[in-house]
Amino acid sequence: MLLGTQKINSEGHLEIGGCDAVDLARRFSTPLYVIDEEAFRARAAAYVEAFSSRAAIAGASAQVAFASKAFLSKAAAKLAHQERLHLDVASLGELRLVHEAGVDMSHVTLHGNFKKDEDLEAALDLGVGLVALDCFQECRRLSEIAVARGARQRAIIRVVPGIEAHELEKIITGQNDSKFGINVENGEALEAAKLCLELPGIELVGFHAHIGSQILDVSPFETLAQVMVELCADVRDTTGWTAGLLVCGGGLGIRYKSTDEPPSVEDLAETIVGGIRRAADQRGLTMPTVGVEPGRSIVGEFGTTLYEVGPIKTVPLGAGETRTYVAVDGGLSDNPRPAMYGSEYPILLANRAAEDPDTTVRVSGRHCETDTLFPTVRLPSPRTGDLVAVLATGAYNHTMASNYNLFCRPAVVFVAASEARVVVRRETQDDLTARDVG
Amino acid sequence: MLLGTQKINSEGHLEIGGCDAVDLARRFSTPLYVIDEEAFRARAAAYVEAFSSRAAIAGASAQVAFASKAFLSKAAAKLAHQERLHLDVASLGELRLVHEAGVDMSHVTLHGNFKKDEDLEAALDLGVGLVALDCFQECRRLSEIAVARGARQRAIIRVVPGIEAHELEKIITGQNDSKFGINVENGEALEAAKLCLELPGIELVGFHAHIGSQILDVSPFETLAQVMVELCADVRDTTGWTAGLLVCGGGLGIRYKSTDEPPSVEDLAETIVGGIRRAADQRGLTMPTVGVEPGRSIVGEFGTTLYEVGPIKTVPLGAGETRTYVAVDGGLSDNPRPAMYGSEYPILLANRAAEDPDTTVRVSGRHCETDTLFPTVRLPSPRTGDLVAVLATGAYNHTMASNYNLFCRPAVVFVAASEARVVVRRETQDDLTARDVG
Repeated sequence: MLLGTQKINSEGHLEIGGCDAVDLARRFSTPLYVIDEEAFRARAAAYVEAFSSRAAIAGASAQVAFASKAFLSKAAAKLAHQERLHLDVASLGELRLVHEAGVDMSHVTLHGNFKKDEDLEAALDLGVGLVALDCFQECRRLSEIAVARGARQRAIIRVVPGIEAHELEKIITGQNDSKFGINVENGEALEAAKLCLELPGIELVGFHAHIGSQILDVSPFETLAQVMVELCADVRDTTGWTAGLLVCGGGLGIRYKSTDEPPSVEDLAETIVGGIRRAADQRGLTMPTVGVEPGRSIVGEFGTTLYEVGPIKTVPLGAGETRTYVAVDGGLSDNPRPAMYGSEYPILLANRAAEDPDTTVRVSGRHCETDTLFPTVRLPSPRTGDLVAVLATGAYNHTMASNYNLFCRPAVVFVAASEARVVVRRETQDDLTARDVG
Repeated sequence: MLLGTQKINSEGHLEIGGCDAVDLARRFSTPLYVIDEEAFRARAAAYVEAFSSRAAIAGASAQVAFASKAFLSKAAAKLAHQERLHLDVASLGELRLVHEAGVDMSHVTLHGNFKKDEDLEAALDLGVGLVALDCFQECRRLSEIAVARGARQRAIIRVVPGIEAHELEKIITGQNDSKFGINVENGEALEAAKLCLELPGIELVGFHAHIGSQILDVSPFETLAQVMVELCADVRDTTGWTAGLLVCGGGLGIRYKSTDEPPSVEDLAETIVGGIRRAADQRGLTMPTVGVEPGRSIVGEFGTTLYEVGPIKTVPLGAGETRTYVAVDGGLSDNPRPAMYGSEYPILLANRAAEDPDTTVRVSGRHCETDTLFPTVRLPSPRTGDLVAVLATGAYNHTMASNYNLFCRPAVVFVAASEARVVVRRETQDDLTARDVG
């Protein structure tokens, strides 16, 4: 299983963006995050194309926003912006980074279930395009802050559509039992819309919902489209105001296992835009702009982590059984998802990529913990000094990395057209103690 | 449930080290890690006292090392060193930090299942007291590196004693099926000792084992003592060499729940030292120095995280049921343990600490994820602006913190005798993008 521009070159090495992974490891050291810029860019463009063209058929526009929490650096923000994506941010830190990257702030949406005054103030001062309002008190507070500035902030209301997408419990967010948003079923979303239409500091633009993460079946999005259109129609019937934007969140899954068959971006566009179109026709609703917020499904498959193999041990399990442990020079600090969610990833030996797997091993990280990365994987018998490539680490690896055990966080390298450039430099020993004043 | 020097003052506020938690939050902002220096120091001293006095009765010495991965800053390293604890480190970063803190490096042990040459070289150059050898190839490599420097490095062999402590699978390390150490049962530990006794660059000092984490029953340590003494006696019988140090690891549990009843430090000392003494008597073995490596049980109970309460929502669950979500201004980035292990913590309202709990709520973090910190907790009905105190966050919170969603990592404040001092400053917005080269 290879992803994006990956191929196996004549030396039997993994190649990404025309760069030999063995050379990358030598040049930039390990652990290393490698981002396949061309594939990342192509997927971003494909999202815009799929939604724009499907929306045009429906007589509407589309707005595709990159969910930056999945993978964020200035280079990533620039790339997304160049490819005409909007950007979602969920903190002052993310907001500032995309601003520093030169993104047109009118293309940015500020999310979050707990925005402090300083976050809302910074958002207004930087000219953020949209604020996603998460609760009644935030609607009132945003209005006050905007009024104090003589401004009126464009906003969408995050609603809870009451849909369960049946994925990992920790990343399901669309069901009623959620910290996020305002409930549709009990009428609160309608009340929130009425409130926002009255508040002097808010220009209500539409609604937002997000039903979960790593979703491998588009059918919940069909239901979501119906629920969102019903809400819009109810609000119109009550207030006379028609939503101009319906954001249906992110959540499309990617291929973490060879058996995963995620729907295509075109399938997703057809389901969401078509679903909204059909529901809007039934309720006589003017077709809104259709928004989506992919993160993982834009960048997830196009990140690769390179690790050096260290000590290899075969240990007795009893009854003549053994297990082989292969240590790599990273672990839960650069990829907490196996420890947190039991996540699986495709894995291969980057320096022996043409060899067939002939043994089953456990890959463990370097931390002073059990730190199992991959409990049971097939590889060509690994040797100390080999280079492990973990594929599909583009999302929620770099952004979730920690300094546990005071290991330095990896560099991020973008590769394209046989060129590699560092976009986030490796952490140094001095960085590790920079905040220690004690 | 209050811990360390915590009390409720006349204003009904939580007080730690004589400092009002509400004042601390105002002064240093939230989220904030507060370390109860006096209690941390007292527990460190109690460990040394308990093991030294019990070892003296057994005609031996004790060596208590602080497992710095649990909580590390220069102030913590200095405190541990002042209290006559040795220090365990598991990376070049931890090694350098304790060196910069002025710790006598002969009191430091370097651990880890994958030490690179640069780690071993730095350890020798800095004069580290002990290297814990994890596999055969590391024994040979350490010897080579030492010989190249004309040195002989004191070392212990980490062995796998084949004991299951029946705690969380992710943090069990003593069973045979482990990435760590060298197996005792199959004779490899004996072979490793023979090898190390022959290698010119290694001065073998003894053995090390670690059976797990958050252990609430001392009996596995009794078994461990027996296994370790049997190994020493077998090695003596085979080689004539007698181990001078037996390190029985860490793992003592702490009170995360009011129903937790961790054994006392004295109980642990009695079990380990007494167990070694009895087993040594049976095998006619000279009593070794007894080592332990507590981390969590020294500092865990004496850290408190302070969070500001943000939006509060009551959401419908169906059938007339509701749930109240209380948002706080931190989450899985400053405490990944609930997401990673389902960990529970004691929690109270620091500004209303004298009030009885009258409601059940779910406390959620601020991240753009479900980010449930505490699924079901009893509190006095929280209000926006209240101050949540999460107790017992001294271990594996500061050291495991990430920048997920680009929130700034909290400051660490030491409090004692009504004084508070910042030992790790809060991360700044500029820190967040310092490595981003674009």
